[in-house]
Amino acid sequence: METRINLPQSEMPKAWYNALPDLPTPLAPPRDPETKEILTPDKLEPIFARELIKQEMSSEPLIEIPEPVQDIYRLFRPTPLVRALKLEKAIGAKCRIYYKNESVSPAGSHKTNTSVPQVYYNKLEGVRRLSTETGAGQWGTALSFACSMFDMKCTVYMVKVSYEQKPYRKILINSYGGEIFPSPSDRTNSGRAMLAKDPDCKGSLGLAISEAVEDAATHDDTRYTLGSVLNHVLLHQTVVGLETEKQLAMIGEKPDYLVGCVGGGSNFGGLVLPFLPRKLKGEDITFVAAEPRACPSLTRGSFRYDYGDMARLTPLMKMHTLGHAFMPAPIHAGGLRYHGEAPIISNLMEEGLVDARAYYQNDCFEAALLFLKTEGFLPAPETSHAIASAIDVARNAKPGSCVVFLYSGHGMLDLASYDAYLRGNLENYELPQECIDQALMMCPTVEG
Amino acid sequence: METRINLPQSEMPKAWYNALPDLPTPLAPPRDPETKEILTPDKLEPIFARELIKQEMSSEPLIEIPEPVQDIYRLFRPTPLVRALKLEKAIGAKCRIYYKNESVSPAGSHKTNTSVPQVYYNKLEGVRRLSTETGAGQWGTALSFACSMFDMKCTVYMVKVSYEQKPYRKILINSYGGEIFPSPSDRTNSGRAMLAKDPDCKGSLGLAISEAVEDAATHDDTRYTLGSVLNHVLLHQTVVGLETEKQLAMIGEKPDYLVGCVGGGSNFGGLVLPFLPRKLKGEDITFVAAEPRACPSLTRGSFRYDYGDMARLTPLMKMHTLGHAFMPAPIHAGGLRYHGEAPIISNLMEEGLVDARAYYQNDCFEAALLFLKTEGFLPAPETSHAIASAIDVARNAKPGSCVVFLYSGHGMLDLASYDAYLRGNLENYELPQECIDQALMMCPTVEG
Repeated sequence: METRINLPQSEMPKAWYNALPDLPTPLAPPRDPETKEILTPDKLEPIFARELIKQEMSSEPLIEIPEPVQDIYRLFRPTPLVRALKLEKAIGAKCRIYYKNESVSPAGSHKTNTSVPQVYYNKLEGVRRLSTETGAGQWGTALSFACSMFDMKCTVYMVKVSYEQKPYRKILINSYGGEIFPSPSDRTNSGRAMLAKDPDCKGSLGLAISEAVEDAATHDDTRYTLGSVLNHVLLHQTVVGLETEKQLAMIGEKPDYLVGCVGGGSNFGGLVLPFLPRKLKGEDITFVAAEPRACPSLTRGSFRYDYGDMARLTPLMKMHTLGHAFMPAPIHAGGLRYHGEAPIISNLMEEGLVDARAYYQNDCFEAALLFLKTEGFLPAPETSHAIASAIDVARNAKPGSCVVFLYSGHGMLDLASYDAYLRGNLENYELPQECIDQALMMCPTVEG
Repeated sequence: METRINLPQSEMPKAWYNALPDLPTPLAPPRDPETKEILTPDKLEPIFARELIKQEMSSEPLIEIPEPVQDIYRLFRPTPLVRALKLEKAIGAKCRIYYKNESVSPAGSHKTNTSVPQVYYNKLEGVRRLSTETGAGQWGTALSFACSMFDMKCTVYMVKVSYEQKPYRKILINSYGGEIFPSPSDRTNSGRAMLAKDPDCKGSLGLAISEAVEDAATHDDTRYTLGSVLNHVLLHQTVVGLETEKQLAMIGEKPDYLVGCVGGGSNFGGLVLPFLPRKLKGEDITFVAAEPRACPSLTRGSFRYDYGDMARLTPLMKMHTLGHAFMPAPIHAGGLRYHGEAPIISNLMEEGLVDARAYYQNDCFEAALLFLKTEGFLPAPETSHAIASAIDVARNAKPGSCVVFLYSGHGMLDLASYDAYLRGNLENYELPQECIDQALMMCPTVEG
């Protein structure tokens, strides 16, 4: 029996799946952060490439993957679907567990699936430089990789505390030719204002977003890019689910459970969205979204309009949110420390199409170490949530079920968090309801 | 065109290729480090598993890969053979370049190909614990991975200076359940003796070997393992070349050049040895061995009997050596800082069957960055020598040639060395002849 299912490159998807036309209820439109009116596309043009704005609102069911993007995808795609036989045995599973391995990409995670097309479309439109923020560093790495492929300049604002804790991320981004600055920096008004107030400020994702957006808005040759949340980001990630669908078909499998971790929601969306039409037609497929108990936007957040960033610069999106002012506890899964959730995933959640579950970080690291000692590979802390959830699902699934989870990234640059876990230094943060209530009070009131 | 050639798992080799019976001149036998007499196998039993000693001297042309070893291999094997189209284009190559990607193993390098069988055979013989030394950490990681797969204890002695410089290696080994000590340690006589002499001693590979060997020799339940140099290690690595041969056949290719980096010689041997019978039959295949100019055992070493370690504990082996007392400059390719060369590779070198070339480390990092910016992946500093050499070969090859190099490992845990390179802090060490002459004077005189 083959435990690794490799799709030939000739079978790599030629188009992304666009979930927007299939949603049972249409997505609520994004709104202007100041006027709260429904946003017109031209308002986004100083920040985003036009083609990406078009994709953000497209009603086409399939969107062609440009040939030059496929060329770069072929450096690492299709990624393998792997039967986790030893993990199954270790937990006494009566079902089959597979993982789709996105850690094999050059930057080490699924983020490259969207960084490559984002850079490509910007390049086509004459943009010379891209700016972005990064927290733990996965997205900044993926963007700098893609920029090096298309000979574009890349500027990353990395939350200062992470910048200092994870020096390897900086070196990797530099190696790809990208520049990286700890945020707050003295390169933007928002950065300088913060430094004037507090020269020792360690930064936040919200502030880093403000710096990256300002950098793009104030330089004609520069646009901004985002690594999750938005519709076009989830669109690009569907290459993951489309491949998975073909790989399962190759071995005569049908998934009963699809499991992914959720921060902004792009890796989860990428895996499950291509299966949405089958689910809507009545196939019994459960979409399981695994989030941290310390940042539980799907399980405990409110579905309403909110800003994507702390500085209130982004459009208002209707989504599950803990409030843009919410400051998650310092869990090691930095990529899951986001107050909101992708509008598409939030929409499906409201329709009862997503089974969201929240996990403590110690349980996730325990699951990660079990995976390491059975399947051999070191998962990223974010990915450990998908593993904990897949084990949880497999233990309770009907015998004979097929469970597929998304192995979103490796943990080679996150080893410090394993050290903290092994030393018993990690807390299981319990989030008091008043923290959420308080943060939600800062959300804007929007009709609609 | 498929740029990634995946071999189905059903085609994974079921036996390793043993080069010993095919060598044009028989290998000179190992000798006792004290008496200098030809070594009898029983002398090695306190240190090595019996099956490994048997393989070390076997004349069987093929040695079966045990089913439980194949089971672990299947977690990551067969590894892909990849056409490096973008690299070809960047250097204007008139030939085709492929790389065999061993970085996809759990521990991130080819070392797992031998750690898995070594642990397996020891387990079969009732051994409970394995000891070893590690320099840069690749071998220690691979051994701890394999020990976790077979539920064995693992003790790693890591050269103290590396232990302190590369904290992620320690954490990864601990995560697999292995224990790791900076060497010199207070756990062995050799360690304690050194600490008494110099409490601040930063260690050396020679001393770490002494500690690991002593640990095994003084504990009944413990054996020692070595990650390169020995015949059985190269034997296990032939799975790489055997797969490569099949993958090339799948696409109708025949290799003109096979390129690998050499430290102890195991990854290079693993790639080229399975092609030895074809070469001996007259096929025009060039075996290119790439070594550091700072540690040029093949290009400038002497072919003679020498010890494998500084402390003169290992058997004497006839090999290309710079002298066991030779202390290589602190280049970042820690895995290539070894005074000797595998006896099998040395033997082939003497027969004129190996084309050895030496490279400066800055040229290797330049090649690594070119690879990163074209093919996307970050190579280990050791692997960068193979890349530099493959580029060198490709630039000078007959148009239409087929060049295959071994991508032995990734550089995710070696980013500090890239930082040093990017800052312009790396030296191109020029090795004066008198250093070699002096170290060679310490070699023993052996008849034969």
